[in-house]
Amino acid sequence: MEQTQESDIVVIGCGAGGATAAQFAKKNDRKAQVTIFESGSYAQYSKCGIPYTISGEIPKIMNLLEFTEEWFQKAKINLHLHTKVESIDCKKKIITAEKKDGSIIKKQYSSLIIATGAQPTRPPIKHIVDENANKLKKNIFTVRTIDDAKEISKTLESAKNATVVGAGLIGLEMADTLHKKGLKVTLVEALPTILTNILDEDMSKSVLKKIEEEITVYLNTFATEITTDSQGNLKSVLINEKEKNETKEIPTDILIIAAGIKPEISLAESIGCKIGVTGSIKVNERSQTSIDDIYAVGDCTEYVDFVTGKPVPIGLGSIAVRQGIAAGINATGGNYQLPEGVLQTATSDFFNIEIGSVGPCSKLREDMQTVNAKHSGFSKPEYFPGGKPITMKIIVDLKTGIIIGAQAVGENAAQRVNTYATAILSKLNIDTFKKLETAYAPPIAPTLDVVTLIADVASLKWHRSK
Amino acid sequence: MEQTQESDIVVIGCGAGGATAAQFAKKNDRKAQVTIFESGSYAQYSKCGIPYTISGEIPKIMNLLEFTEEWFQKAKINLHLHTKVESIDCKKKIITAEKKDGSIIKKQYSSLIIATGAQPTRPPIKHIVDENANKLKKNIFTVRTIDDAKEISKTLESAKNATVVGAGLIGLEMADTLHKKGLKVTLVEALPTILTNILDEDMSKSVLKKIEEEITVYLNTFATEITTDSQGNLKSVLINEKEKNETKEIPTDILIIAAGIKPEISLAESIGCKIGVTGSIKVNERSQTSIDDIYAVGDCTEYVDFVTGKPVPIGLGSIAVRQGIAAGINATGGNYQLPEGVLQTATSDFFNIEIGSVGPCSKLREDMQTVNAKHSGFSKPEYFPGGKPITMKIIVDLKTGIIIGAQAVGENAAQRVNTYATAILSKLNIDTFKKLETAYAPPIAPTLDVVTLIADVASLKWHRSK
Repeated sequence: MEQTQESDIVVIGCGAGGATAAQFAKKNDRKAQVTIFESGSYAQYSKCGIPYTISGEIPKIMNLLEFTEEWFQKAKINLHLHTKVESIDCKKKIITAEKKDGSIIKKQYSSLIIATGAQPTRPPIKHIVDENANKLKKNIFTVRTIDDAKEISKTLESAKNATVVGAGLIGLEMADTLHKKGLKVTLVEALPTILTNILDEDMSKSVLKKIEEEITVYLNTFATEITTDSQGNLKSVLINEKEKNETKEIPTDILIIAAGIKPEISLAESIGCKIGVTGSIKVNERSQTSIDDIYAVGDCTEYVDFVTGKPVPIGLGSIAVRQGIAAGINATGGNYQLPEGVLQTATSDFFNIEIGSVGPCSKLREDMQTVNAKHSGFSKPEYFPGGKPITMKIIVDLKTGIIIGAQAVGENAAQRVNTYATAILSKLNIDTFKKLETAYAPPIAPTLDVVTLIADVASLKWHRSK
Repeated sequence: MEQTQESDIVVIGCGAGGATAAQFAKKNDRKAQVTIFESGSYAQYSKCGIPYTISGEIPKIMNLLEFTEEWFQKAKINLHLHTKVESIDCKKKIITAEKKDGSIIKKQYSSLIIATGAQPTRPPIKHIVDENANKLKKNIFTVRTIDDAKEISKTLESAKNATVVGAGLIGLEMADTLHKKGLKVTLVEALPTILTNILDEDMSKSVLKKIEEEITVYLNTFATEITTDSQGNLKSVLINEKEKNETKEIPTDILIIAAGIKPEISLAESIGCKIGVTGSIKVNERSQTSIDDIYAVGDCTEYVDFVTGKPVPIGLGSIAVRQGIAAGINATGGNYQLPEGVLQTATSDFFNIEIGSVGPCSKLREDMQTVNAKHSGFSKPEYFPGGKPITMKIIVDLKTGIIIGAQAVGENAAQRVNTYATAILSKLNIDTFKKLETAYAPPIAPTLDVVTLIADVASLKWHRSK
């Protein structure tokens, strides 16, 4: 067994969070020994990029590899691929891992960083799982790994009809990808709205309207069952519209399941790490778990929402990376505190619609008294041709007038939402923010950008309501 | 003479600041009588849009009219065009104006808003002025009015060689416009850098490099004299490079002078309004002058820089509009305070380079101890094709770590700078800001946007320096 040095950092999982933690551990303490154990076959790659390798926008799947094995070697970080950590002894501070060939590694750590990620949820759709192999049947996929991407791409060569289950970010990105590839796409969502955790209903409705011009969308609808032909090939998906209680059969050559993720917490649970109400590993602003010298980052964790203080599962690569920075630095004796909660700033682009969002979703803020305002404008002054529409909604705390959320659909939604992310992080009052001098030039933005126009509307409403 | 009612607002000048003030006065008090006197021929139009009417990006010059005479009529704001205010009696609160036909109007006010704007500076270039008519000679133009735009467009029909004097925003926008129209363009700047009030030297140098691929630029160079042919037509501009003390002759069919503006303060001065060190009317956070019930807005005013507290002349339409909001509301009994200074957020786009800037320019902060950081990155993750370069520089106060400035060159520079404008307005510390969760999605932005990457660099430098 290897000897423990002063800083001997072990990271379980080489996703965005784990890889970042390893890098920042090494950066913060060049003498630290840093070891990553990854059960899969690849070094760190972008999971979020998968839909775009399938669409062809990213020309090669392997381009997704952001940090290769060679990179880790050069950085003097020990990366063990195909190596699954089987157990942790947190008294003796030793992990036990099994290599592909069945051999066992035992490794002592001074600090451990759990970055075990999450697995895609399998909704209760009858017959989708090959029970013997415990995997999805042929032509049925989740969208999580490089291997998923490869298999989906292969299947698309002959597929004509696609069904996508789940209208969150990944579901919509995949629906767009399949539509671009020329398939007839049906999107099925169990909830009454799309993008439920990202956009309020009024904002998501305008997005839905545009998407429905391109593909068929069923809301309030369960995918209940698949049918196969005599050779066992996928033939259709049966769906049930809740309100009508009617079953329809959707011809389907490829079924994409994008119904959320389930955090991988078994190792953490086995050693008594506190699991939060969302079913993920509870971490604090230093990315520490409830056990000394054990950190956790990324999709296996929950932290709190910045505005409401309520626990939220982490499902964004951007947050995983920031937790990785914190865990890597703190595990090597540094002191890095994340903000008192996550802002959940998010964006995407599908069917040529850019969306952006920051702050708690409508469900999370349902017991807050808020003032909401919505405004549509253009990215350029009216007299300048080529201005593109942008709709924003912002949410203000009724009691204090502090900005707590912003959502945008349209031109540069992401960057516009970043401006609001700064306002939320600063706990800025709407009356201060509305006076923000935004950059103005006719070919670029109006004298009063939508970013401040919407703030003016919100301020008026707030003064009338309070 | 008309009778004074409770709120009888008189506005002198119908530019962005004056027109906005009138609108907000009416908005804040629907019973207020609001009257604008404008010496020119047009209702409110965008001065900043002029270069783009000449380039043809804005198809018709008259599209620049943002608010027409009819609009003001509908809004029940009395707009007198071709009417020059000749004097103010601030004891009796009466202005005297002269109409085009020589007739005199006297009008009492409860509050007066001075929005007299500025005139383009005429640098000491020999022979450019027709002394009898006190106007620039044929084919020599400043870029300020709709009539300038019309004349320049007409002249361009036959011009081949253009010289532009002044490498500020308008000079560069005009150089780009003339280049797009196919002219051979020479840009002459007396200072050693371009965009001196907008970008630091290191940032402006990269812009200069790109511009020099398209046109000829002389820095540290005075335009000293023009020559004309026997018919009196413009033939060339003589320039003198300071260091070499060499005179060159630049063949020139059209000369554009964009050498800054001189505030129009004669009326304000005549009644004893306090004039600030920059030579403009001093106003406070309510846009009040030193005389009771007299406000001033826009290019004729000076306010203070948010960060340094030093007086700065107002030269941006975006600030004029915000002062107009304040003056309009305050003049009608409201209470609207602007932030404690101007952020001077600015942007433009020329030669396909977007630039953005916020915070005091290098000269203004020369007696501050600061930490500067610069970083170049891409608008998308490395693995996603089509990412565009973006370089940012940020400036942090050495003592406090508070962010005081940001500059950007490249993709979405304006919106990225708006995020920093929010940080500056919030007096955010670099260590807090660097943890900002920016919106991430592969087709849109990296997990760590340049906006936060540069903050990380600055934070490191700050900790090392303090």
